[in-house]
Amino acid sequence: MDALHEVTHSANVRLNDEDSTVVIIDQTKLPNELVYLPIDKVEDAYQAIKTLQVRGAPAIGIFAGYCMYIFSKKWKDLSYEEFKKKYEEVGAYLNSSRPTAVNLSWALRRMKKIVEENADIPTILTLLKKEAVAIHEEDIAMCKAISEYGLSLLKPGDGIITHCNTGPLATSRYGTAIGPMLLGNERGLDFRVYADETRPLLQGARLTSYELQRAGVDVTLICDNMASIVMKNGWVDYVFFGCDRIAANGDVANKIGSSGLAIIAKHYGIPVYSLGPSSTIDLNTPTGDDIKIELRDPDEIKTMWYEKPMALPETKCYNPSFDVTDHTLLSGIITEKGIVRPPFDVNLKKMFGDNNDK
Amino acid sequence: MDALHEVTHSANVRLNDEDSTVVIIDQTKLPNELVYLPIDKVEDAYQAIKTLQVRGAPAIGIFAGYCMYIFSKKWKDLSYEEFKKKYEEVGAYLNSSRPTAVNLSWALRRMKKIVEENADIPTILTLLKKEAVAIHEEDIAMCKAISEYGLSLLKPGDGIITHCNTGPLATSRYGTAIGPMLLGNERGLDFRVYADETRPLLQGARLTSYELQRAGVDVTLICDNMASIVMKNGWVDYVFFGCDRIAANGDVANKIGSSGLAIIAKHYGIPVYSLGPSSTIDLNTPTGDDIKIELRDPDEIKTMWYEKPMALPETKCYNPSFDVTDHTLLSGIITEKGIVRPPFDVNLKKMFGDNNDK
Repeated sequence: MDALHEVTHSANVRLNDEDSTVVIIDQTKLPNELVYLPIDKVEDAYQAIKTLQVRGAPAIGIFAGYCMYIFSKKWKDLSYEEFKKKYEEVGAYLNSSRPTAVNLSWALRRMKKIVEENADIPTILTLLKKEAVAIHEEDIAMCKAISEYGLSLLKPGDGIITHCNTGPLATSRYGTAIGPMLLGNERGLDFRVYADETRPLLQGARLTSYELQRAGVDVTLICDNMASIVMKNGWVDYVFFGCDRIAANGDVANKIGSSGLAIIAKHYGIPVYSLGPSSTIDLNTPTGDDIKIELRDPDEIKTMWYEKPMALPETKCYNPSFDVTDHTLLSGIITEKGIVRPPFDVNLKKMFGDNNDK
Repeated sequence: MDALHEVTHSANVRLNDEDSTVVIIDQTKLPNELVYLPIDKVEDAYQAIKTLQVRGAPAIGIFAGYCMYIFSKKWKDLSYEEFKKKYEEVGAYLNSSRPTAVNLSWALRRMKKIVEENADIPTILTLLKKEAVAIHEEDIAMCKAISEYGLSLLKPGDGIITHCNTGPLATSRYGTAIGPMLLGNERGLDFRVYADETRPLLQGARLTSYELQRAGVDVTLICDNMASIVMKNGWVDYVFFGCDRIAANGDVANKIGSSGLAIIAKHYGIPVYSLGPSSTIDLNTPTGDDIKIELRDPDEIKTMWYEKPMALPETKCYNPSFDVTDHTLLSGIITEKGIVRPPFDVNLKKMFGDNNDK
């Protein structure tokens, strides 16, 4: 298998052998069934993103890139004008499947640029595949680099607690916050990972414990409220979680529960690291207070997953999707460019001062 | 309605009007159905405790007392020897329904003493009812006193976060940790209560939010991992939770998640109180480290409640039922005898030094 084939064919989002479908793992079926879903229709691609069959910002971007290439091949006999019109229609439609997913529109913009800057259809098709593979390869390289930096902190036998899902299913290959343990595991290093189940959507139970279990990493699933006793027992050396947005002062917005986990870790003297791509660092946002927190449907708490409702229909719920971990609770922020240490306001600017030009 | 009738007929465990059945709220049907279950058979009483149709240590004790009275009435035509033999058999059987419930064997011992110390059956029946009512009345008075002491800390509009279920369903009338808010509500004082759902058994969602909602208290249900953001938002003035056992130094064993909640509260400068009867104070246990933590079935985390499993069958879980909140995190311990303040080792001994003689 050559290097390119390995990239395009071995991940959770991949091309089939004939370059005629994009194959994804249907994440809604996990952990009970491992179903590979071949996608070659526009409507199916839209639904796959919308219904979270494929989820995780990087994975969605990679999926959208491959989809646009596969769809374009079917239009190869059209005139350039017809091709371009069709391409733009389908691209806009796919982009509307999850409006808040930054990586989706970013990947689609990269792909569209090729159609705009070229007029020869066979050339366009070649370049579209190349660009889709590049998006995928870059994500693999980024996750690998993050994982290497994270792994540099660990020694065999360490216990790590993690929150939500930041693994291969959401990204490519190693993922971000659980990447160091997956990469270390490949190298024969043993770690003990404690995966918070991550209420209400249970990404830690359904996806993270699944990925680690399947990879052969020693993983123990716990409820979110068990982090304190696990730390008190002396089983945890590090807290590793992801990031959705990082402010200029180092405050980190991440999945709900991250800030509580960090506060408890600080109480027990356990270092906390946030791991993610540098694209999540937003130097235009001064502090965590400037990050708007998405509120979600109360039924995620009261009825979702369950055989019958767990609270009265009229009971109020507060269901924020994220919280902000204060930068004073963090020992470091791990990106593909290195580990940023406090003072974060100074050091983030030093390492990512040109981020705003992107 | 006279005072005695009110005690025996208005709570979640009560006699029917003819003193022929014990009526309980079937807690396994909540919050979806409010089902009153009349119990008059020994086997049904055993099953009601075993299957958690009646739960909460004080409620189980009250239930057992009334049951033994109701059963005894059926044996009124037996000789004293036959009566006593029958009574002891049934009492031992009922006691085996939940071997770790301290209040169950304690209530059964109180009731049995009457049968041992008297020989006239009509007298025994009168005294059995009197003793069952006394067990019930004492619990009501104890919960009321705890609630009054707790309420003395609060001012209208305060926000209180609570964990697990410590309400009327588990005790009688006001309960313990949510008692202050229920008592205050009766007096026209408004509070905002945040109820942790309390994974994995969801007592906060199924029972606490139900009780507070039905009583007309402003309650908001949250996942356990949302306590930090709720506190950061400035919505919480106090943390009130129960206690299963309190060591001589003031360390408190309570439902899993209590210690993390207390650590997060301390970070935000919010006072934490543990509320419960003085019978939970065990001066023979020096510190929390001496309290053995019960480990429960992993399926409570992975499969219970759900339509389908949320993790692989082979995935390990750690499922402790309790954790220990360090006494340094507590502002006070509220019992029916008053509020104990630090230093707890000194002040617990001062107030409860004779507890060991019980």
